Amino acid sequence: MQHSKSQAALIVVALLTSLAAMAEPAPLSKWNSNMNRNAIIEFVNSVTRPNSPSYVPPNARIAAFDNDGTLLCEKPNYTQMQFAVDRIKASFSVHPEWQELAHIRELVASPREMPVTLKGQNWLDVFMLSSSNVTVDTYTRAVVDWFEDARHPDFKTRYSTLAYSPMTELIRYLHENEFKVYIVTGSSNNFMRPWTTQIYGIPPERVIGSRMELKYESVENGPRLSVSDEIARFNIGPSKPISIQEAVGQRPILAFGNSNGDIEMLEWTCSGPKQSMGLILLHDDAAREYAYDQEAKVYDLATKNEWKIVSIKKDFKEVFENQITR
Amino acid sequence: MQHSKSQAALIVVALLTSLAAMAEPAPLSKWNSNMNRNAIIEFVNSVTRPNSPSYVPPNARIAAFDNDGTLLCEKPNYTQMQFAVDRIKASFSVHPEWQELAHIRELVASPREMPVTLKGQNWLDVFMLSSSNVTVDTYTRAVVDWFEDARHPDFKTRYSTLAYSPMTELIRYLHENEFKVYIVTGSSNNFMRPWTTQIYGIPPERVIGSRMELKYESVENGPRLSVSDEIARFNIGPSKPISIQEAVGQRPILAFGNSNGDIEMLEWTCSGPKQSMGLILLHDDAAREYAYDQEAKVYDLATKNEWKIVSIKKDFKEVFENQITR
Repeated sequence: MQHSKSQAALIVVALLTSLAAMAEPAPLSKWNSNMNRNAIIEFVNSVTRPNSPSYVPPNARIAAFDNDGTLLCEKPNYTQMQFAVDRIKASFSVHPEWQELAHIRELVASPREMPVTLKGQNWLDVFMLSSSNVTVDTYTRAVVDWFEDARHPDFKTRYSTLAYSPMTELIRYLHENEFKVYIVTGSSNNFMRPWTTQIYGIPPERVIGSRMELKYESVENGPRLSVSDEIARFNIGPSKPISIQEAVGQRPILAFGNSNGDIEMLEWTCSGPKQSMGLILLHDDAAREYAYDQEAKVYDLATKNEWKIVSIKKDFKEVFENQITR
Repeated sequence: MQHSKSQAALIVVALLTSLAAMAEPAPLSKWNSNMNRNAIIEFVNSVTRPNSPSYVPPNARIAAFDNDGTLLCEKPNYTQMQFAVDRIKASFSVHPEWQELAHIRELVASPREMPVTLKGQNWLDVFMLSSSNVTVDTYTRAVVDWFEDARHPDFKTRYSTLAYSPMTELIRYLHENEFKVYIVTGSSNNFMRPWTTQIYGIPPERVIGSRMELKYESVENGPRLSVSDEIARFNIGPSKPISIQEAVGQRPILAFGNSNGDIEMLEWTCSGPKQSMGLILLHDDAAREYAYDQEAKVYDLATKNEWKIVSIKKDFKEVFENQITR
C-alpha cells in the first residue's frame, strides 16, 4: 500500500512536470527550426543538466558576444562611428584646430547616408576626438541624447531598434539558463554601457570594450573622473581574449562573433577543457538587412574549427522587432 | 462577513510575518552592537527599502572592499608579498641572473618571520619576478598549492583562515541585500581570483586588482594566454576609482578600506549623488591581531569626510573564525 501510494505520487509529479513543460513556450521561437537552433539548445542542455558529463556550474557559464554586426546592425557604419561623426559635425565650428585635419574636413562635408571609409589612424583620430577630454558623466549624457534623436539613414528608425531580435532572444535564453553573458566589443565601454541594460538586459559591468585612459582629479567641488586623449585598448583581435581574461578571469564556453576581429575570441573559447560552442553570424540577407563580408577569413576558419555559421537568411525567422524594413 | 474574513486573513499574514522576522537571526552577529554596526544596518535599510527616498535599485548597489588589511590580515607581510618571497626563494637556485640583484639576494637570505621592508621599484621587482613569463593556468596552480601548504609565521595557520569573520559576514549581508560586492585591491587579479569565491563568496569577475600585461599566442597545440613581464596597473590610490569605472562602469555607494591607498576610492564613492557610506578599519587590537598605522592620513580624512572608523578592538566581537589566536 505504501509502495503504490508513492508510485501514484511519482506519476502525479511526472504529469505535472510534463504539463509545466508543455505550458512553457519553446525556446528560441524567433529562430527557424534548423540545425543551428537545435545545436544551440542541445549545447545549453548539455552544460546545464546536473547529471550531464559536460555539466558546467553556473559560475563558469561564461558567454561572450561581439556587438557590431553580431547583436546590432553595423551598416552602413558602426553605430559608434556614426555617433562620432555626428558629434564631430555638431562641434566642428567651435574647434578651429580640426580644420587643419584633411580627413576630418572631408568627413564633415560628406552626406550622412554615405559609408565612412576611414581606416587605421584616421579612424582612431575620429574615435579619440569624439570621446576625449570630457567627464564620464557628460559623455554618457551625450550618448543617451544621441540614441534618442538619431535615425538610421536606411531604416529611418532609432539605432536602438536595430538589435537583431533572435540574438536578444538568445541572450535571454542564456540568462534563463544562468549564463553570465558579456559583450566583448571594439566599440568603447563609455559608448556602450549607457544602453546595454535596456536593449540587451546586459548590465554595464558585463561590457568589455575599447577604452581611453581615464584621469582622476581632486578638484575644488569634489573629485572628477574624465576621459583623457590616450587610447588604452582597441578591443579587437587578440585583445578580445586578453580583455576577457582581465575582466572575467575565466575562459568563456560560448562565443558569438561575425568578423575577422572575433577569430581569437572564438579560438580561445573553443580550445578550453570544457564543452564549448563557437558561432559566426553570416550577413547574407540583402532583402531584410545587408549582404557583405561573406568571403572573410573567419568563415574558412569556422569550417576548419567546427564553429557554427548562422545565416540571417536561413536561421532568423525575423531580423528586427516590429517588422522594421528598409 | 466578507470584511471580517479579510481582516482575519490580514491578521494571520501579519502574525506569520512577525514570526518569520523573529526566526531570522539578527544581521551582523559577529559585530558588537555599537554605533558602527547600527549605522551599517541603517544604511542598508535606507537604500533597499522600496519606498525609501534614498532607494537604490539592485543593479546600482555597488560595494567596493579593499583586501589586504580590510578583509585579510596583512601583517607581518601582505599575503601576495609572502607568496612572492616564498616563490622566489624556491626557484632562486635555477635563476642565476637573480644572484646579481642585491635586494633579491638579501630577501632570500632573510628568515620568513621577518617583515619584508622592500619598497617602490624593489617591491615591484619582486612582484614581477614572481608572477611573469608563465601561463595563467600554471600561475593559478602555484597560487592554489601555496595556499594549501603555507602557514602564517605568527598564527601558524593557513592564510585562508585569516580573513576577518565580521567582514566576511558583512559581505554575506550585502549579498543578501542584492549588493554587487567587488574587491578592489593592490594585490593582483591572478593572485586573488583562485580563492576569493571560497573565502569571501566573491567570484573572479568581481576582483579588480593590479595586473601584468597578458600575451596571446597561437602556438602549435592551440592558443596560449600568458603573463608578460610588463606591469599594466598597480592598483592603489587614484588607480582604484579609475579601475572601478573601467570594470564596473558605475560609482560604488559603499567603500571599505584601511590605508592611505584607499583614500581616492572612498572620496569617489562618497561624493556621488546617491546616499553612500565610507568605512575605514582601524588596527588597534594588539592582543587579537596587530596594532599599526593609527596615525595614517586616512584617519584624519575620515573625520573630515564622515567616513566611519571601525575599530577591531571595539567593533569586532570576534576577529577570526575558530578562535584562532597567536
